[in-house]
This record gives sequence, structure tokens and C-alpha cells, in this order.
Amino acid sequence: MPDPRYLIIADGNFDPLESKTANSVIRYHPTRVVGVLDRLTAGKTVQDVLGFGRSIPVVGSIEEGLALGPTAVMIGIAPAGGRLPDEWRAWLGKALDAGCDLISGLHTFLSDDPDLQARATKNGRTIFDARKPPTDLLIAAGEARLVDPFVVLTVGTDCNVGKMTAQLQLTSALKARGLRTNFVATGQTGIFIEGWGTAVDAVVADFIAGAAEDLVLRGAENADIVLVEGQGSINHPGYSGVTLGLLHGSCPDALILCHQVTRKHIGEFRREPWLRIPPLSRYVELYEMIGSAVHPTKVIGICLNTYDMTDDAARAACHAAAEETGLPSTDPVRFDPTPLVNAIARERENYIERRGIRR
Amino acid sequence: MPDPRYLIIADGNFDPLESKTANSVIRYHPTRVVGVLDRLTAGKTVQDVLGFGRSIPVVGSIEEGLALGPTAVMIGIAPAGGRLPDEWRAWLGKALDAGCDLISGLHTFLSDDPDLQARATKNGRTIFDARKPPTDLLIAAGEARLVDPFVVLTVGTDCNVGKMTAQLQLTSALKARGLRTNFVATGQTGIFIEGWGTAVDAVVADFIAGAAEDLVLRGAENADIVLVEGQGSINHPGYSGVTLGLLHGSCPDALILCHQVTRKHIGEFRREPWLRIPPLSRYVELYEMIGSAVHPTKVIGICLNTYDMTDDAARAACHAAAEETGLPSTDPVRFDPTPLVNAIARERENYIERRGIRR
Repeated sequence: MPDPRYLIIADGNFDPLESKTANSVIRYHPTRVVGVLDRLTAGKTVQDVLGFGRSIPVVGSIEEGLALGPTAVMIGIAPAGGRLPDEWRAWLGKALDAGCDLISGLHTFLSDDPDLQARATKNGRTIFDARKPPTDLLIAAGEARLVDPFVVLTVGTDCNVGKMTAQLQLTSALKARGLRTNFVATGQTGIFIEGWGTAVDAVVADFIAGAAEDLVLRGAENADIVLVEGQGSINHPGYSGVTLGLLHGSCPDALILCHQVTRKHIGEFRREPWLRIPPLSRYVELYEMIGSAVHPTKVIGICLNTYDMTDDAARAACHAAAEETGLPSTDPVRFDPTPLVNAIARERENYIERRGIRR
Repeated sequence: MPDPRYLIIADGNFDPLESKTANSVIRYHPTRVVGVLDRLTAGKTVQDVLGFGRSIPVVGSIEEGLALGPTAVMIGIAPAGGRLPDEWRAWLGKALDAGCDLISGLHTFLSDDPDLQARATKNGRTIFDARKPPTDLLIAAGEARLVDPFVVLTVGTDCNVGKMTAQLQLTSALKARGLRTNFVATGQTGIFIEGWGTAVDAVVADFIAGAAEDLVLRGAENADIVLVEGQGSINHPGYSGVTLGLLHGSCPDALILCHQVTRKHIGEFRREPWLRIPPLSRYVELYEMIGSAVHPTKVIGICLNTYDMTDDAARAACHAAAEETGLPSTDPVRFDPTPLVNAIARERENYIERRGIRR
């Protein structure tokens, strides 16, 4: 089957920080992206806007976008207000009529839209709503603690600090060492990149841990290592329930703590900030204590996001984090992921010995 | 408006331990219950079966039940397998045709059943699905920390240990002292008893804390004290996400830790037990640490469930819990809730002083 070719809608909000889904798909699958639709930056290249992505064009209309020959149109940002704008609905209708599939991670499902669904059926196209939860989820029962592969979960000091990116960088680095490594996607962007997964924040609350357990059991097949994409933060006033359900449901053997260095308050991009981010060492203590209440786990490395810092400041931040926590620390996007890769490989050796697992 | 009169369906599972919803409604609103439908214990009184509830009859058919003149039929147990049995659906249809409303806390909504909904419409009756979440929930933003009343949340060592019952017992005791006390229901049974609330385990995972925040803001009106019904346990492999979302969303000023003394493993009634319940002092540490990561809180009392113990053993357990934790400890159903009532009243005085709230 040939690779899909995506036209990504990021209209009105295509930029290095905000359009996380669009940017991550472009970063990890640049050859699959034929264009981005954004009227504000139309005429530029993705490289101009994001600093990566080379010559992928940004276009200003759905017609120009469809002329690039996509096989699917992907929603790459959350529209302002959360609802699907009428304008976008019209674009999506044209895309279906032009023979494209639709891919979306919105809370509102495109497949629930009667007009879009009717057009999809008529044209033999599929609508993939990444946040639509599986219907056969169970209450978690701690089954994930029994899998053979070494399970690593990224945890964070806040939302949107690099928990998914960390795992994607580590997945390729561990594979390059010959370790069979499966990335387990728990959010829409990860699902778009990996092709499977469950948005654990979109399931009914009773089933968060059950969804995580199910994902780890599936990710454990033919793997030496399972890297689970983390969500939220254990002290996030809005999302901590998802974070803890994921932590207890996935039963990780080790944690990697992710932090964006310049962030000072929880959720400061969205609302008036009031909750200061405590020191990294406090997070280590919190995550280990609460995680180990179900399955023994420990933080084995620190992953920093230094996207808005100079090289020197970023390097200093890594040193400071290592000093504070006594753990290997790096920015695996800017620098070398090796310190974290080494930590995972080393801890996995101990784990294999402890559990008596055959290599 | 006259009080409703309930016929409660508990067919096949009416007993002191398992039929929690039926039993709690009978305990707190005995005058509203005209009968229980259970073919296994039909012919007995509720007193015979539960040890309370006096002469309320248990009947063996829907016809006998409807002859008792209920205004509503309530589902009082979870049917085996979770799905609505066809037999029950037929009973509910007859109840609607006889002019009754329906009240249910099942995960599957009765109002989604075309036949039942059609009959309800035809007869001008309402179907109340207590687990159907509100459609206007927001992501929590820590707003509950700003309310004036003193907010107390019950937390537990496991599910089904008495977190709702504790708050209901304390609500009446605090009201009797002249303190305006609102009980905030977060599960189906609490909603049935109180008449309003949200089943926080039934909302989409992203909105657990938002649902809790919304409930506290509503419960804070005209109140000196808000008592929030807790859910699950912070170390429950399946439900901890709901527990933490509720803890962070409701921003309690104080916690009461609930435990069923003879329980040794998490969830031991449901699955093969594997996770031992740690000591109470460990729970105090866990809940205070993780709760205070969003809003400062502390455990101020221990509430024991000793339903299956002798008076002497129960008394000894209360002493042991007080000894271990240094906190007032009682079983507020078997003994006197006063130790916990005193603890709440005392801590509220400190809180008022600290916050400079006018009495």
C-alpha cells in the first residue's frame, strides 16, 4: 500500500508553538505532507514558518490544496472555540468529493456530521476520528504489570512540554541500537504519527486506566521495550485524572520526566496562571510515590524542552537538571538523546535480570 | 410538590452488601420507598433482608409492585453483565404505561432505548439517567479553591468503603449543630438521594475535574460547609484517575479517610485480589501530598466501616486507627459521628480565621 499524502488544515494558527498536531506530523512524516492550508501564511514554505519542513508549500484555499494531490485532509489545529467552523466544513465536503479521506482529532466527531458522513459514503471515503474511543474498553485490572517488555512512560511538569516528542526521538534511537521498540500513542497527534492508539483523555472517566492497559498489552507484542506517550501532569488542576489513570493503567517500569525549561506556571498558555511549577526533584518524588502505589516505578531520566533558549542556556539547563535530580538529562531534539537511551538500556538490563526474562 | 414514591428493582441481588443503591435510598429516604422487586426474597420485608427498612414489602412481580402505587421505578442494582435484561425492559415499559417515571444509574442510558423513550413521551413521563453527564462541562481551572465555605472531601482506601455514607451521616450531624451544610453527590446513588449532582466517573476523562469544580461551585451557595462525596481510591488500578480528578477539581480544604476494616486487598469483591491495602498512615501521606500539589489540604479524621464486625472489635479498630494516625476515628453509622463532626467544626474555625471570612 502506498503511503498516504496529507493536506493539513492549520488555518489561522500555523506557528511553531500552537499548531502541535500539524507540526509533529510534518516533523515525523515530512514526505507524507503535500501542503498546509493557512490563509495567514499562504505563499510561504513550511520551512519559512516552522524552521523545518523544507519546501512543503502553504496554500490559501482548499482548491490549491487539493491540486497538490492529497489522499487525505487532516485537521492539524484545534479551531478557535473548539467547534468546526462552517468554512472548514465546506472545505472538508469538497475534499471528500475530490476523493480524499478525512483525519481529525477534534472532540466533535466529523463522522457524526450527517452531510460529511453522507459524502464519505457516496464517495467510498473514510473519516477517521482519532478521539473516538474504542467501544469495548474494560476497567483496568493491573494486567499491564505482567507484560515482558520494559515499559517506559513519559510524565510531565505540565501539558505540552514534549512527552510525545521525547518518546518518538527515543523510539528511533533505541531501534537503531537493535532493540525492538514500540511507541504507544495516547493522544491524537501520536495516533496520527503512529497509525494506531487511543486518545485516553477522550474515553469515559471510568475507563482511562483500562484504555492504557489495553494499549500496553497491544504494544507489548514483539517488543523489547514499550514507550508510552504521557499526558498532562500529576498536578495539573484540569487534567491530572487522565495523567494518573494513564500512569496506573500502563504500569510503567520506569518514567522519564519532561519539562519545558522556561515554563514557570502550570498551563500558562491557556488561562491566568496561578499554580507555580515546583522543582523537578519534587515531581520525581510525587510521580514515584503515586506510581509505585500500584506498580513499582522510578524516574530514570529528565527530558528538557529548550526550544526557545540559546544553545548555551539549554546546555546549562541540562546540567542544572542533572545536578538537581542526580539523573541523566538532555534535550533529545536539540542535543543527543544518548543519555536517556543509555538510561533505558541500562535499566532494562536490571529489569531482565530481576524478572528472569529470556533475552 | 408531594414526595416521590419509589418501587426499586433489585431483582436477583438484594442483600446487605451488594445492592448499594437500593440500600442507601432505603436508608436515607425510607418513607419514599413503597416496595422492592426481587424474586429471590419476595414475600419478606426489607427489614428481614437488610436489617433495616421495617415493613417495606419485597414483591415478586412488576404487577404487584405497581399495585403499591409508586410514582417512579428506580433501578437499584447493576444487572449481571451490565446490560439491561430484556425482562427488565418489559417491566420498565409497563411502569411507564402505568404512569411511572424511570430513574436509573446504569452506564447504558434508558433514554437511549427507542421503545422506552417512545412510551415515556406517549405517557408524558420522564426518564432520569443519573449517569448522563452535563453537556456544558469545562476543563477545571482551580476555581473551587476560591469558594468561601469549608470544603471537605471523603477519600478512601478502596471503592465501596463508605465515602458517601460518611458524608450523609456528617451532613445531618453538622446541620443539627446549625451549620449550613450541603452534600455534593458525585455518583449515582448520591444523586438519587440528594436529587442533584454529577456522576464524575461517567464524564469524558478530560472533564472529571471540571465536573467536580462545577459541583463545588453549585454546592457552595448558601453554605458554611460543603461535603463532597468521594470516589474510588488514589491507588486503585482501575479508578484512581477519577479519584485524583475529583480531588484536584474540588480543591478540598480537608479530607476524611474512609476504610472498611476487614478489607485486605483493593477491589477484592470484584477480581482476583493482588494489591494489598497499605496502612492508613500511608494513605494519609499519599492523599495529603498529591492533593496539596494543587490546593493545600490535610486529612482531619478517619471514618471506619465496621459493618461485618462485633461491637468490641469495631471499637478496638477505631482506637487502633486513632493510635496509628493521631486523628479522630469512628464508625459514624454504628457509633457516634461526633469525633468527625468536632474535627470538621474545629478545622473550619481555623480556616475562617486564616481566610478572614465573615461568619
